[in-house]
Amino acid sequence: MNRHFVLVASFGLSLACGAGTTLSRADEGMWLVSNPPRETLKSKYNFEPTEEWLKHMQRSVVRVGMGGTGSIVSPDGLVMTNNHVGLSAISKLSTKEKNLMKDGFYAPTREQELKCPDTEIRVLWDTQDVTDRVNGAAKPGMSAAEAGAAKRKVMSQIEKECQDAPNMRCQVVTLYQGAKYHVYRYRVFNDVRLVFSPEEIVGSFGGDTDNFEFPRYSLDMTFFRLYEDGKPYKPEHYLNWSASGAAENEPVFVFGHPGRTRRLYTVDHLKFLRDVDLPERMNRYWRNEIKLQGFAGRNAENARIAQRDMRSVSNGRKVYTGLLAGLEDPRLMGVKQSEESELRSFIDRDSEHGREWADAFTEIANAEKAYRDFYVERQTIEAVANGSGLLSRAFDIVQLAEELPKPSTDRLREYSDPSLPSLYLRLYSTEPLPEALEIEKLTQALGLLAERLGGDHPLVVKAFAGKSARARAEECVNGTTLKDPAARRALVEGGAGAIKASNDPMLVLAAVFDPRSRELRKLYEDKVESVERDAYAKIAAARFARSGESMYPDATGSLRMSFGIVQGVPRDNTPAFTDIAGLFARAAERKGEAEFTLPAKWYAAKDKLDLKTPYNFIADCDIIGGNSGSPTVNAKGEVVGLIFDGNVYSLTGDVIYDGESGRSVSVDSRGIIEALRKVYDAGTLADELTHK
Amino acid sequence: MNRHFVLVASFGLSLACGAGTTLSRADEGMWLVSNPPRETLKSKYNFEPTEEWLKHMQRSVVRVGMGGTGSIVSPDGLVMTNNHVGLSAISKLSTKEKNLMKDGFYAPTREQELKCPDTEIRVLWDTQDVTDRVNGAAKPGMSAAEAGAAKRKVMSQIEKECQDAPNMRCQVVTLYQGAKYHVYRYRVFNDVRLVFSPEEIVGSFGGDTDNFEFPRYSLDMTFFRLYEDGKPYKPEHYLNWSASGAAENEPVFVFGHPGRTRRLYTVDHLKFLRDVDLPERMNRYWRNEIKLQGFAGRNAENARIAQRDMRSVSNGRKVYTGLLAGLEDPRLMGVKQSEESELRSFIDRDSEHGREWADAFTEIANAEKAYRDFYVERQTIEAVANGSGLLSRAFDIVQLAEELPKPSTDRLREYSDPSLPSLYLRLYSTEPLPEALEIEKLTQALGLLAERLGGDHPLVVKAFAGKSARARAEECVNGTTLKDPAARRALVEGGAGAIKASNDPMLVLAAVFDPRSRELRKLYEDKVESVERDAYAKIAAARFARSGESMYPDATGSLRMSFGIVQGVPRDNTPAFTDIAGLFARAAERKGEAEFTLPAKWYAAKDKLDLKTPYNFIADCDIIGGNSGSPTVNAKGEVVGLIFDGNVYSLTGDVIYDGESGRSVSVDSRGIIEALRKVYDAGTLADELTHK
Repeated sequence: MNRHFVLVASFGLSLACGAGTTLSRADEGMWLVSNPPRETLKSKYNFEPTEEWLKHMQRSVVRVGMGGTGSIVSPDGLVMTNNHVGLSAISKLSTKEKNLMKDGFYAPTREQELKCPDTEIRVLWDTQDVTDRVNGAAKPGMSAAEAGAAKRKVMSQIEKECQDAPNMRCQVVTLYQGAKYHVYRYRVFNDVRLVFSPEEIVGSFGGDTDNFEFPRYSLDMTFFRLYEDGKPYKPEHYLNWSASGAAENEPVFVFGHPGRTRRLYTVDHLKFLRDVDLPERMNRYWRNEIKLQGFAGRNAENARIAQRDMRSVSNGRKVYTGLLAGLEDPRLMGVKQSEESELRSFIDRDSEHGREWADAFTEIANAEKAYRDFYVERQTIEAVANGSGLLSRAFDIVQLAEELPKPSTDRLREYSDPSLPSLYLRLYSTEPLPEALEIEKLTQALGLLAERLGGDHPLVVKAFAGKSARARAEECVNGTTLKDPAARRALVEGGAGAIKASNDPMLVLAAVFDPRSRELRKLYEDKVESVERDAYAKIAAARFARSGESMYPDATGSLRMSFGIVQGVPRDNTPAFTDIAGLFARAAERKGEAEFTLPAKWYAAKDKLDLKTPYNFIADCDIIGGNSGSPTVNAKGEVVGLIFDGNVYSLTGDVIYDGESGRSVSVDSRGIIEALRKVYDAGTLADELTHK
Repeated sequence: MNRHFVLVASFGLSLACGAGTTLSRADEGMWLVSNPPRETLKSKYNFEPTEEWLKHMQRSVVRVGMGGTGSIVSPDGLVMTNNHVGLSAISKLSTKEKNLMKDGFYAPTREQELKCPDTEIRVLWDTQDVTDRVNGAAKPGMSAAEAGAAKRKVMSQIEKECQDAPNMRCQVVTLYQGAKYHVYRYRVFNDVRLVFSPEEIVGSFGGDTDNFEFPRYSLDMTFFRLYEDGKPYKPEHYLNWSASGAAENEPVFVFGHPGRTRRLYTVDHLKFLRDVDLPERMNRYWRNEIKLQGFAGRNAENARIAQRDMRSVSNGRKVYTGLLAGLEDPRLMGVKQSEESELRSFIDRDSEHGREWADAFTEIANAEKAYRDFYVERQTIEAVANGSGLLSRAFDIVQLAEELPKPSTDRLREYSDPSLPSLYLRLYSTEPLPEALEIEKLTQALGLLAERLGGDHPLVVKAFAGKSARARAEECVNGTTLKDPAARRALVEGGAGAIKASNDPMLVLAAVFDPRSRELRKLYEDKVESVERDAYAKIAAARFARSGESMYPDATGSLRMSFGIVQGVPRDNTPAFTDIAGLFARAAERKGEAEFTLPAKWYAAKDKLDLKTPYNFIADCDIIGGNSGSPTVNAKGEVVGLIFDGNVYSLTGDVIYDGESGRSVSVDSRGIIEALRKVYDAGTLADELTHK
């Protein structure tokens, strides 16, 4: 099998006929649960989701931390997600002596389950449209910047009012880049316990080489359990397990929290991504990855402590490589251009709003032009201020000192009262911050600052304080008290005065960045974000006027439903399924390579395993980063798979859906049960999943 | 032993007392053989090199290709250089079946020696000062740009006149950034045969991890033999082998061709390096390295064909990482600033030339400011046009079509008549250009073009021709005839008409870059280079006026002499020597890692080997890239070592010499003989070296 890594998406082919005639194509879309594509589902799959079915799915799906998805899969609050989503929690339970990431974990009884520090899981309880109230904050005569500030303030106000119980958390979500605002109310769980995790090597089998590839052989799963009042949570809604799994060509559904797409961006805005944002971002990824490799290569302990960063960086690098290659492909931009031209023709024919809608495109182009002038400085300072675990905590503390004395609704939004519990969870986390890695990352961050801003930039001069980057990093890491979570808590609880009086070297360093960071943020909010929101609201109005409101908004981390069918990729003759036999074959093919090395227990179990059991599969569901850990369900809402990746053709999904070749990749529900029962001796867990 | 990779040079310490009082410190300097530091050598080492000694050394040292050094070490024309310098030749003698890089090679008899295709070795025969003639070309009233062009023309004229025999090659060398011009006449050897090479893993033992580190354990050597008229060359001058090797604290000398230093740059010019040139260069290195890793990771054959590129990229990345970290260290720039301030004080006191000299600093600052406007575009286009083996050959051919019809002295200098033989050697080289690697590198190059210039830049639009980068690369690589050296030759011999008429896709692609490349080159030559040369000539005059002419010019690839003493690094307690026992210990310490895996024959020979034999050593000689393969000799001119690297503290050597901790790293002459006799069964070669 030719496993050539091809960064050529197929939108040129798939869209040749359909481009522009309608906004969504094939099984496209990350749909609001409150506004599913009823017509398409009915006409194409003869499926009509009831309100009950939708609510059941909504309350069965969870958000894990801020970047992943999971689902409740038993009446006793069992949560299924990916191994790579759970890794942050698992790493906090691991020590040098007992490395759960490496060795895996299983608690056959409730008593053996491990409570995860600083882990938060949320269920979306209900939502409400607050568009009118948010827009109403902008009064006639206000500039875009003033209107933006007024809206941000009312959004904080709405969040505060909505928060009616200690275990509820509210968030105003911006949809269609600013055309709609919804307030989301989440039920929050903080007592989360680890039930099962395979060895990381099994979860991420194939490593960076196979990441975003298919055929694929990863058991990328982890199980947690939600607790309430010290007892397993008894949910009203949870997913059942499919007895038969998914079949080729069967319609399936994915519910989850896709993080961000930018499909409604104008062409000028996409060009900003292509020419300014992504090249700058890629440089940081390449730089980080090479430097981390050098650090990890020095010895085995460095390799261990750098592993999570390495994985995160190589994953991001691959994501953005695919996206950038797509944006650089003239065919993709051609499709976007003709879609936009069609919309503009419609706009030009509208005598009432045409002028205003057309101007919106110019306003966005001008905003991006304005952003170019300070983009590198802003992004660099944000990347540097968050460049090491200690510095990023110090930066939060320094910002808190400025923000806490203000009324909640006047603060930077992430420091408003409703946001504080999650912030404190991160800030006081017991996550290990190994000194060697902190020094390395801080050295790298200071170097980045000098490289991007120039050695004579006032912030560089202040941050280096007359020393080399490494000497300064050593001084700050060795001298700070912030390594101790209790010290961080004491500082914050001491209030603004205590923080400002501290001469902790890490706080002193963080304080270097705070004023300029604020200035640039205000510049961004006033000159870019507010203008964009205003203009995109107008463009969305034009789209609604043309196609009605049955369109999906770009992903924003809010709950979405995707759909599609289980199928291979015709252009590559890629099959829809892999099986456990293929896993052993792939391990044999790449023998000797660390990321393809199966643990001995797999070989010990080989004779018992049904090697024909489906292991991973693909479907043309429209997903993106943040969907990791999403359940793949059939029309009955039963679990048939567990999303963990997209294929290489899906990498342009941030800006365009490739229905011909782009695929979501799931662990097969049958592979999960087979492995639990026969490799991991976890029959009790398998029974709980299948309700036996 | 703590092998922490520290990018903290020690200039801050070493220069605290001596900064600025004199230009050269400790054992600093890459001296012209025609102007050695006689006083220092006499006072410090009681050594007075005679003209005869200097001429003997000059004619015994060779330049290998354009980027390395070697030395003649037997009366039968045996040449010693590094394995990593010889690798280009060795790779051309290797096939998939018989991989001499991997397996090593030894020819016990003359008949078994292998003739290296397209390999050129030169001996510097004599030199002549032509400063007056070059400067005389600039007439009063000419602009800097006009004067620069006139000087370049007379330089080509001088080279042409000097070239008095087919085996002689002449080159005008610019010294002190433009204060002096010398013409160098080289005797050229094209019949070069491979005699001995160890396995690459032994030559580069420790790979990227140990590169630029000490303690070190590399047998980085290769032996060639020069032939003339089909017989071994009988040189008048060759080096003898030291019977006893070097001792700690013994003075030693290094002769070689250091490629480039920029120590005489003004502070403004150094800031251009720090803030513009190096960050841009590093981005290309990181990008290339990550992309090559992805390509090489796909399968074993990819890993094999990408190996040389990977090595070259990781080496360059490490070099520039060290240099950039140094430049970003405020202490280094502080030293440079105070040196410059002292010079400026001297200048301010000179009533005759002070004004003119002082203006020179402003002229350079302005030139660098002007360069900022087109630096990225120029560097990107040059990097892209040379981004793959095939495209770079196509680019040469396209440029030749423009240049050949012009009189030789009017051409771009690298296409003048005296330059053509070396150009044709490269152009018609039989070096393999594997298609998979070519497609990968061309895809990367096109992506770089789009990333740095933006997707709407006219060159990007033309180069992509409506396709994705990968599709376009496949089209050009699959469709070109240039893979065949004979086709390249036929095209060039067909002349400008044939080249311009060709519709070979690779030539068509190369032609996209030619016009803009010429425009930017002219802009650079007129607005930057000519101004710099003129201004640096003035600054050099100021330096000469202050300190006399006993200073060394920055390295330019011309022959130089360095000196120093064999000594460890006090700040790290690093010893001066390693031994063969240490090699085995290091291999054991990093067991299982590919780059630390000794071949079986070393273990088979272990009992026979004297494990206390010195293997590598360091000295504070001032060297830089291009010195690779240089002989390290004692005061009698006898070989005691073979330069192959600098330590990590030497990485700032491009701009400043770190006498306290910077070290040159040599293979010990005793280690060479011990390995040849006992591991490689190459007693005949060892006898020839030691004249037994």
